[in-house]
Formats: sequence, C-alpha cells, structure tokens
Amino acid sequence: MEFLLSSANGIALAASLVGIGFAAYQLRWVISQESGNDRMRQIASAIQRGAQAFLRREYRAVVVLVAVVTLLLIVLGLIPGSGMSLWTPIAFVSGALASGLAGYIGMYTAVRANVRTAQAASKSLNSGLRVAFASGTVMGTTVVSLALLGISLLFLLFASQLPAREAVSALAGFGFGGTSIAIFARVGGGIYTKAADVGADLVGKTEAGIPEDDPRNPAVIADNVGDNVGDVAGMGSDLFESYASSIIAAITLATLGAGLAPDKTLAGQVFPVLVAAVGILISMGCTFLVRTQESATQEMLLGSLRRGVYTASALVALAVVVLGLALDLGWNVVIATLSGLVGGVLIGYFTEYFTADSYRPTQQLSESANGGPAIVIIRGLALGMFSTVAPVVIVVVVTLISAATGGLYGVAMAAVGMLATLGITLATDAYGPVADNAGGIAEMAGLGKEVRTRTDALDSLGNTTAATGKGFAIGSAAMTALALNAAFVTALMGASADAGAAILRIDVLDPRFITGLFLGAVLPYLFSALAMLAVGNAAQRIVEEVRRQFREISGLMEGKAEPDYETCVGISTDSAIRQMILPGLIAVVVPIAVAVLSLIGRDNIIGQFVGPTTLVGMLIGALVSAFMLAVMMANAGGAWDNAKKRIEAGHLGGKGSDAHKAAVVGDTVGDPFKDTAGPSLNILLKLLAIVALVIAPLLATTPLV
Amino acid sequence: MEFLLSSANGIALAASLVGIGFAAYQLRWVISQESGNDRMRQIASAIQRGAQAFLRREYRAVVVLVAVVTLLLIVLGLIPGSGMSLWTPIAFVSGALASGLAGYIGMYTAVRANVRTAQAASKSLNSGLRVAFASGTVMGTTVVSLALLGISLLFLLFASQLPAREAVSALAGFGFGGTSIAIFARVGGGIYTKAADVGADLVGKTEAGIPEDDPRNPAVIADNVGDNVGDVAGMGSDLFESYASSIIAAITLATLGAGLAPDKTLAGQVFPVLVAAVGILISMGCTFLVRTQESATQEMLLGSLRRGVYTASALVALAVVVLGLALDLGWNVVIATLSGLVGGVLIGYFTEYFTADSYRPTQQLSESANGGPAIVIIRGLALGMFSTVAPVVIVVVVTLISAATGGLYGVAMAAVGMLATLGITLATDAYGPVADNAGGIAEMAGLGKEVRTRTDALDSLGNTTAATGKGFAIGSAAMTALALNAAFVTALMGASADAGAAILRIDVLDPRFITGLFLGAVLPYLFSALAMLAVGNAAQRIVEEVRRQFREISGLMEGKAEPDYETCVGISTDSAIRQMILPGLIAVVVPIAVAVLSLIGRDNIIGQFVGPTTLVGMLIGALVSAFMLAVMMANAGGAWDNAKKRIEAGHLGGKGSDAHKAAVVGDTVGDPFKDTAGPSLNILLKLLAIVALVIAPLLATTPLV
Repeated sequence: MEFLLSSANGIALAASLVGIGFAAYQLRWVISQESGNDRMRQIASAIQRGAQAFLRREYRAVVVLVAVVTLLLIVLGLIPGSGMSLWTPIAFVSGALASGLAGYIGMYTAVRANVRTAQAASKSLNSGLRVAFASGTVMGTTVVSLALLGISLLFLLFASQLPAREAVSALAGFGFGGTSIAIFARVGGGIYTKAADVGADLVGKTEAGIPEDDPRNPAVIADNVGDNVGDVAGMGSDLFESYASSIIAAITLATLGAGLAPDKTLAGQVFPVLVAAVGILISMGCTFLVRTQESATQEMLLGSLRRGVYTASALVALAVVVLGLALDLGWNVVIATLSGLVGGVLIGYFTEYFTADSYRPTQQLSESANGGPAIVIIRGLALGMFSTVAPVVIVVVVTLISAATGGLYGVAMAAVGMLATLGITLATDAYGPVADNAGGIAEMAGLGKEVRTRTDALDSLGNTTAATGKGFAIGSAAMTALALNAAFVTALMGASADAGAAILRIDVLDPRFITGLFLGAVLPYLFSALAMLAVGNAAQRIVEEVRRQFREISGLMEGKAEPDYETCVGISTDSAIRQMILPGLIAVVVPIAVAVLSLIGRDNIIGQFVGPTTLVGMLIGALVSAFMLAVMMANAGGAWDNAKKRIEAGHLGGKGSDAHKAAVVGDTVGDPFKDTAGPSLNILLKLLAIVALVIAPLLATTPLV
Repeated sequence: MEFLLSSANGIALAASLVGIGFAAYQLRWVISQESGNDRMRQIASAIQRGAQAFLRREYRAVVVLVAVVTLLLIVLGLIPGSGMSLWTPIAFVSGALASGLAGYIGMYTAVRANVRTAQAASKSLNSGLRVAFASGTVMGTTVVSLALLGISLLFLLFASQLPAREAVSALAGFGFGGTSIAIFARVGGGIYTKAADVGADLVGKTEAGIPEDDPRNPAVIADNVGDNVGDVAGMGSDLFESYASSIIAAITLATLGAGLAPDKTLAGQVFPVLVAAVGILISMGCTFLVRTQESATQEMLLGSLRRGVYTASALVALAVVVLGLALDLGWNVVIATLSGLVGGVLIGYFTEYFTADSYRPTQQLSESANGGPAIVIIRGLALGMFSTVAPVVIVVVVTLISAATGGLYGVAMAAVGMLATLGITLATDAYGPVADNAGGIAEMAGLGKEVRTRTDALDSLGNTTAATGKGFAIGSAAMTALALNAAFVTALMGASADAGAAILRIDVLDPRFITGLFLGAVLPYLFSALAMLAVGNAAQRIVEEVRRQFREISGLMEGKAEPDYETCVGISTDSAIRQMILPGLIAVVVPIAVAVLSLIGRDNIIGQFVGPTTLVGMLIGALVSAFMLAVMMANAGGAWDNAKKRIEAGHLGGKGSDAHKAAVVGDTVGDPFKDTAGPSLNILLKLLAIVALVIAPLLATTPLV
C-alpha cells in the first residue's frame, strides 16, 4: 500500500517535472522569436519594467504577510495541545513560494511575448496566434505543474513523518500559502489594471481626444502593464489556489474517510493526484492542436482554441474512467469526477451565451443602448442577475450527483475533475492579455494597418476566452470552496469525535449559525464595495497625474516630447497595493477572529453568541452570497463590454453615436465589476474556507453544538 | 386560564375597533376639507379613476389566485391524514380580505387627500401637513387594526374549536392570505409606479422638453396614480403581511413551546396580541404630536414627524415592560421584545444616514457626478453594497439578544416589537405619496408659486420618510421571515416528533440542504431581474403611447387639446398586472414544488435529491440573499435620488449641468431598484416562509434528515 502512495506521487512528480520542462521549452521558443524594431523593443521594455516594478512591490508586501502568518502558525504549533502541526508553516511557505514563482514566470513570459506576438503578426495571423498562445501555455503549464509538484512532494514528506490525519491537516497549509499570494495578485492586480485602464481612458479618450493606446498618453504603459498584472498573474494565482485546494480537499476527505469505504482510503488519496498528473500531460499535448490558417475568421480562431480544450476534456474523461476503475474506486467515484468535468464545460458555455455578442442577451443589451445610459445599466444588471440561474443550477446538479455517487469525497473529486484540464484552459485565458498588449504595441509603434487588424482579431478572441475563463474561475472556486468546507466540517467533527465520517448536525435555528450566515453573506458586499471604491480612488490619482503631464510637459500633445510613463506606473502600483490591504485584512482577520472568539467563549457566556457553528455558517453564507454576486458582476461586465464592441463594429450608428456613448457608460461600470470586484470574490470565498480548514484543529476542543 | 385568552383577545378586538373608528373619523375629516377649484377637482378625479381602475384590475386577478389557492387548501384539508386543517382556507380568505380592504381604504383616502392637501397648502404649510398626514394615519391605523382584528377573531374562534397545535397551524393561513394580496400590490404596484414614472420622464422631460407634472404629458396622470399604487397600497400590504405574520409566528412558537417554560404558554400567546393592541392605541395617540408652525424649516418638519414616532416608541417600550412583567413572562422576554423595537429604530437611522443628503455618503455621491454617469453608477452601487453592513449587524445583534433571552419565541417577539409602532411609522410613510401628488396637482392646476414651494417642502420630507420606511420594511421583513422560519422548523419538528421544543439538527453538508441554500439564494436574483425587465418593458409601451399622442393629437403641445390620460393609465395597469405574474408564480410555485417533490420522494431515490431539508435550506438561502440585495437596491436607489435632488438644489452647477445629467442617470437606474425590485424582495422572502409554514403539516410525515 505504501508502494501505491509513493508510486502515485512519483508519477505526479514526474508529470510536474515534464510540465516544467515543457514550459521552459515553450518559454525559450517564445524568447527566441524576433522582437521587432527599436521602437517596439523600447515600448516592450517599458512594459517589462512596469510589470517588474509591480511584482517587486507586491512581493515585498507579500513577504510581510507570509512572515507574519508563518510566525503565527509556528506559535500555534508550539502551543501544547493546540492540535496544529509544525509542518503547517512549512507547507504554507511552500505554497506561497510556488504560487509566487508561477506568477513571476507567467508575467515574465507575457511581457516578452507581447512584442514578439506583434512582430509575428506582421508576418501572419497564425504566427501571431502561435506566439501568444505559447505564452499562455507557459503560464497554464507552470501553474498546474508547480501546484502538483508542491503537493506531491509535501504529501510524500508528511506521510512519512506524521500520522495520516495530521499529514493532511498540515497539507492544507500549501493551499493557504497559495491564497496569500492570490489575495495580492488578484485583488491588487484587479485594482491596478482597472485603475490604469479607467484613468488612461478618462483623460486620454475623453478629455484629450486621443485614441486608445496612443503613445502620447502618459498612462498608456501602465494600462498595458495592468493587462498582465490583472489577467495573467491575477488569474493564474486565483486558479493555482483552486487547483491546489481542490486536490488537497479530496486527499483530506479520503483520509478522513468521508464517503469512501475504509479499504479505499489509499486509492482515494492517490486518485486526485493521478487525475491531476494525467490532466497536465493531456493538456500539454492538446496545446499543439491550437493553430489556424492565415485566412481564419473569428469563428475559426475560436474553433482552434476549442479544439484544444474539448479534446483535452474528452481525453481526461477517458483517463478518469481508466484510473478510477484501475484503482478499484468503482463507477460511483468516476461519475462524481466526471460530473465536475462536464459542469465546468457547461458553465463556460453559459457564460459565453450571456456575454458573447453572437447570442441574444448581449445583442439585446447593445440594442437597449438606444434608450440611453440608464437603460443600458438597468438591462445589464438584469442580465447579470438573470445569468446567475444557470451556473447555480449547474453547481447544484454537480453537487447532487457527485454527493449521491461519491459522498463528500465525490464533491471534492468533482472540483478536481472540473480543474483537471486547467493546463490548457488557463493557457487560452492567459493568451488574451498577450494579444491585447501586442495590439497596443502595434498601435504605439505605428505598425501597418494589416498588422493591427490581425492583432485585433487575436485580441477579440482573447476577450471571449477571458469572459468564459471568468465563469470557469468562479464555478471552480465555488466547487473548491464547497470541497474545502466539507473538509473543514469533517475535520472539525473527525477531530472532536474521532469518528471518521461523522456528520456535523447543526441546529439550523441556532442564532450563532444564523449570525454566521448573515455575516458571511455580507462580507462579499463589503469586499466588493471596497474593491470598486479602490478602483475609483486609484483612477482619480492617475487622472490627476496625466492631466499634470499634459499641462507641464510642453510638446507632449504634439508628439515632440516623451511622457513620463514611470510615474503613472508607480502611482498605479502604489495605489493598488495600498487599497487592497483593507479588503485583504478583512478576509483573513474575520474568520480568525470568529475562531478565536469561539475558543475564548468555550466555557463562558461568550460561547452563547459565538462558536464553531458561527464559522460554519459564515463559510456557507459567504459561499452562497459571493457566488451569486461574482457571477452577476462578471457576466454583466462581460456583456457590457461586448455590447459596446458590437456597436463599435458598426451596429446602431457605430462609434461616436449616442448609442455608443450609452454603451461606453455600461462598459465603464462593467470594468471594475468584471475585472476587480467579481474575481476578488473568488479569492474571498476560498480564503475563508482554507483559513478555516487550517485552523480546524484549534477548534476541535470546542463543543460544537 | 381560558379567561386570560379571551380577555386578551377581547382587548385586542376593542383596540382594533377603536383603531377602525379612529381611521373612519380621520377619513371623514380629510374628506370634509376643501377640494379646491374645478381644475384641481378634475385632475384629482382623473387620478381617482386611474387608481380605481388599477385596484379593480388587481383585485380581479387576486380573486383568481385566492380562489385557486383556497380550493387547493380545501382539497389538502380533505385528504385524510394530510394534517392540514379545513380552517386554514377560512383564515386564508380572511387574510386576503383584510389586506385587500386595508389597501382599498388607504388608496381611497390617499387619492382624495392629495387634492385637499394641495388646497390646504394654499392656506398654510401646517394645514397641508395635517391633511396629508391624516391620510397617512388612515392607512397606518387601518392596516394594523384590520390585521389585529382578523388575528384575534380567528384565534378566538380556532382556539374554541381546535386543539392548540392545529389552531395555530390554521392561523398561519391569515398571513398567507395577506401575502397573496401583497404579491400583487407590491410587485404589480412597483412595476406600475416606475413604468409610468420612467415612461412619463423619458418622453416628457427628455424628448418633448416639458417639465415634470406638466398636464400636456399624457402619462402624467398614470405617474400620479403610480405614486398611490406603489407607495400607499403596495407598502401597506407589505407591512400588513409583516405585522400579521410576526404576531402569528410568536403565537405559534408560544403554542409549540419553543423558548418558553410550559406554564408560560398562555401568557406567551397573549403577549404579542396585547403588545400589538397597546401599540395601536399609542400610535394613534402620538399622531396628534405631528404638527408644525408656518415658518417651519425642513429640519422642523422632519422633527415633528420624529417627535411622533420616537414618543410612540418610548411609550410602547414602557408598555412592553409593564405587560411582560404583569404576565409574569420575566425580564428575558421583555428584553427580547425591546431589542426588536430598538433595532427597528436603528435600521431607520442607518438607512437615513446612507440615503439623506444631510450626510456624507449621499453628498459624496452627488459630488462624484462631476466624473460622469459611469462614476455615479459605480459609486452608488458601492454605497449600496457598503450600506448592507449596518442592517446586517443590527439584525444579527437583535437575533442574538432575543434568542439568548427568549429563545425562538424571543426572536418572534423581537419582530413583533419592531412592528409594534407600525400604526404611526406607516402613517409617516403613506403620507409621502399624498404630498407628492399634491405637488403634482398644484403644478398641473397652475396654483401659485408659494403653494408649490410648500408642497415641495412636504414632498421632500416624504422622500426622506420613504427611504427610512423602506429600510424599516426590509428589516422587519427579515425579522418576520426569521420568525416564520423558526415557526416552520419548529412545526416540522414538533409535528413529526411531537416533542415540543425539539431542535431540528441538519447535516450542514447534506447536498439537499446545500441545494436548497443555492436555489434560495438565486431566487432573489431571478426575481429582481424579472422585476427590472418588467419596468423596462412596461415603460417602453408608455413611451410609444405618449409619442403617438404627441404625434396624432393636434394642439396637444400648445396646450389647446387634452391628452388621453386614460389610455396611459390602462397600459400601465395592464402591463403591471401581466408582468408580475411570472415572478409571482415563481415565488409561490417553487416552495410548493419542493414540498411536493419531498413528499413524492419519501420512499424512493428522489428523496436522495430533494427533501424537507431542501425547503429549509431554500428558506435560509433566500432570507440571507434577499436581505442583502434588497438593502443594497433600496439604499443605492435612495442615495441616487437624493444626490440628484441635491444637485437640483443648486450644487455642482444645478439643473441642466453635466453633473446633473450624470445624476439623472443614477436616479433612473435607482427607480426600479428602490421602488420595484428591492421592495418586491420583502414579499418574496416572507411568501416563501409563510407558504412553508402553511404546508408544514404536509411534510410532517416525511423523514427529516
């Protein structure tokens, strides 16, 4: 049996290393491409410096957080009888390192691939697609490989040193480490990207009347940096966390015996690891299916990406069946895993339905622009609200099927299944900002019109995959959080009753539970409000700086003088990091505060008002509330964006018409919705869940009900 | 002991009758006031006819719903062993009648008081205030008196005919009856009022360039009718339901023994009834405190309303202490009741803080209008999201205190306490639309400038009370729903285990429970999306009709020809009733469908996917999700409204400036938020809860966990 564990982890290690090698190979290939003329290289270098500056600043802040949390975990581990292992801080630091490294590599690649994509697009559409997608592949493969590498190494180590229950408890620290990066990268990155975008547009397009991506705009480099910061590093760290946490939740539930026969524990532990390992290899292979011909239409471009993703899904499904049966886990567990895989694809489809301009909802939204900005906003919000139904039904059905077939373990495996093809889905996602940047560089460097047309086609494709990617990120975050919650509750029960698969029955009318539900449900609203205000505040600072430069640098508008890009980059960086501290703190401190109060209230009157059930209620309330709000914001934002683009493409009077102006208002509201507040909620709900899981041993001594 | 029951109900009956007499006296006084010149009477008569037409149409639709549900309840009652009493349909019809009658009387008064307020305002500000407030008093007193009359009569009747448990189960039908009116009045009324408002503004102000309330606008009468339909009848039926249901929930929980010692059952049953009775009398008395002097500022006007409400609150608090101790219920129950009373006042305060232009949030929002419409929307949404924190914390604290002191019975008594002063709080609320209408009539009839200034002052005061009233309505709806949920769960448990205060412990990870939570949480989003789209669709039809009239009726713009008001009224009525059917059906059918599936799945595989725990989850999910969304929409809408008014009062360039245009966009988005979708959610969450409570006996035979 030991042999199974070590050989499965060996396979996972091998797959991870192959993945890392593949990513390195792709990165080398990208770097080896031509990087264009001097002007292009100069612009690209400015973007690179900006991205570096942000990462440096972000990581400096992260180091402080990681150091504090590590210390805290060590102190907790040293307290006798706390139940916390001293291996937890080790896992925590590893998770933070792995996620941080993945973000660094992804960003390093993206800010070099952008200029090379622009140059390649001057040769042909297919060349451009290949460079941009190779950059996405580096990110996708790196994220999954580093996550699996960390988990399998730590699992091998912990399993040899600790009893099983403690080993998985410590393993949760790895997910927590990933989250500590994600909170900075996703929330801070989200604020950065939209502050720079909105700031650049407000003064550039509206006041100065110069086009988007005009090199005279001092905020243009910050805007381009923002695409990478938010959509490459932010998205990557978000999904790193989901990916790692879903695997950890499945291992934990298998170990605690929730939903599996006692003789299946070991098979249950290695199954998620093997599914992930095979998923990496298949995703890698399928990236080669992504290529197109020169005269490709938008449909064909999308088709080539889909070919890669759908083939990978089909092959992973096959692998799940083979592995599940080979491990003798039976069809039940296989069906549970597959339900998640199918659910992920379906959520992607419905997201596209509600946000792409080839379907009715977005077309109707763009037509409502004739009624003015207020109507666009009302319709867009209604569309966003309405669009929550499909993902909710999908998540519910996946949960019902996976729980009916595989119990709580089945739910976690559904999350693993949903994320098994992440290597390639993330590649399609991380490809977008590279194409977007390439367009910007082509514009700024004054490349020919046909180059710009090609980069536009690549960019437009990126917008579609970005919207779908967001839906997928939210759906998988919800499934992961559900799996983590299951692991938390089971750990709480298991540790307190030492009864394995005992069920935590809660008095649903217990005011502590109700309190938790309400507080959990209000957190996403508070978090979103802060994120949206942060974008507004940061954008305001950019606007003032851009105005100052136009006023003080003579010859700037005439194109005779260079703007000071660095200052705008500095302002974006600085605001983003500072504005994310409050929402970030809330997400970390609130669950810990509830846990501490529960501990304090163990034997006194405080326990009547706060207890572990408060924490359970809070996790559930936050999960449900954040999921709705995130889907609504992401889809409303996506639909507004594409409704505007549809008008720009010539409908309803095209650019400059009143309908276009109304649609621009929708798009501007949608920006912080879909790129800042919405995605931040993914982090919030996973963060609450993983913090709870990490501190679960602490609460084990507290009476539960 | 019997004696206590009948004498308490006797007191309640007497208080109700005194209230009805008082309302009749006030109504007579209002009618006896001068109704102005011919032109004014003519306009008022058009509004009266429009309001009548809507009520007729609404009640015709209601009759169908009531008939169908009554039949269904009779059939269920006839099925042997269903556990449903045949008295339930009787209570149901009574509730529908009482709520319908209260709405009719309130509306009858309001559409006669409006013109008399305009006339009185031509004499003095205080005269105007007195007429408008007397109209509000009729509504407020009628609602509470009819609700209490119905409950005490039915309770006396049922208690003499049935065992206690069945008596209270049947009593829930009364609340359900009130809800069936509310769903039409609040949702249909909300659609009506905003469709007419938005429609009138879009063509009138924007296209034709004529001022608000201009008699040449064919939709102007519909707009004025809408104020009465939505804000008088709609608000009244909403609070009728909360008021009745909170009392019923408290009686039910006392009877089932949840949170009370066995020898306190009777005292627990009569306490809510007596608190309500005393509350009616005190509220009536305190209406006499509302008067002002001629040179009154806005502050003084608000002060005079507050004097009435705060004095009533203080006196009711005193009465609660005396009654609670006299009935020997002890300080615990008294504290529980008072916590609700204080909570209601606090929610009102925080709502005002976030929506009134005398505080920072709305001032900042209006200043953000300099940044254009998108910024106004982003800031307003952020403000709305942020403003959810205070009411959540208040509800949570009230729940914790009332549960800790009085158990589940304490939670229900907190809801009763919160609503005990409804007689006067609803009066201040229902006063608003009368003042608004009076201003419209003054404008249309071309009364002097000083009259318009006075009605404007009264109207502006009405806007503030409307916003506070909305906060109060949502808060009390949440507390009522919580109390109803407690009654439902206790009934479910009590009936199945026959164990009185048994606690329903649910496996929080049971996928059926999770399913319920998610489905419950998505319902408010679906409901809001439908409500907002309904406003858009109905407004569109009005716009087309108004355009047609301007085109086809020659001399209309020159003021030489009369527009065809009736057609616009007809369109609003028709659209409102038709568009509310789908959301209304969803709210009724979904919980029943879940219950029926639970019954069907009792002994087969369906039971693995749906069960009574699904319904419990759904109630909790909907409560939490609807509460957040409703508060966000109401407060964002209120703040946008007042931010616009602040600019119109001369800030940031005043009317016609770019900032004003941006603020108008916010206000237009806010209209369906605060007057349609937001308030509809109150009904949704109470409807789900009361339907569940009514059908609870059905589910008693189903295994629970």
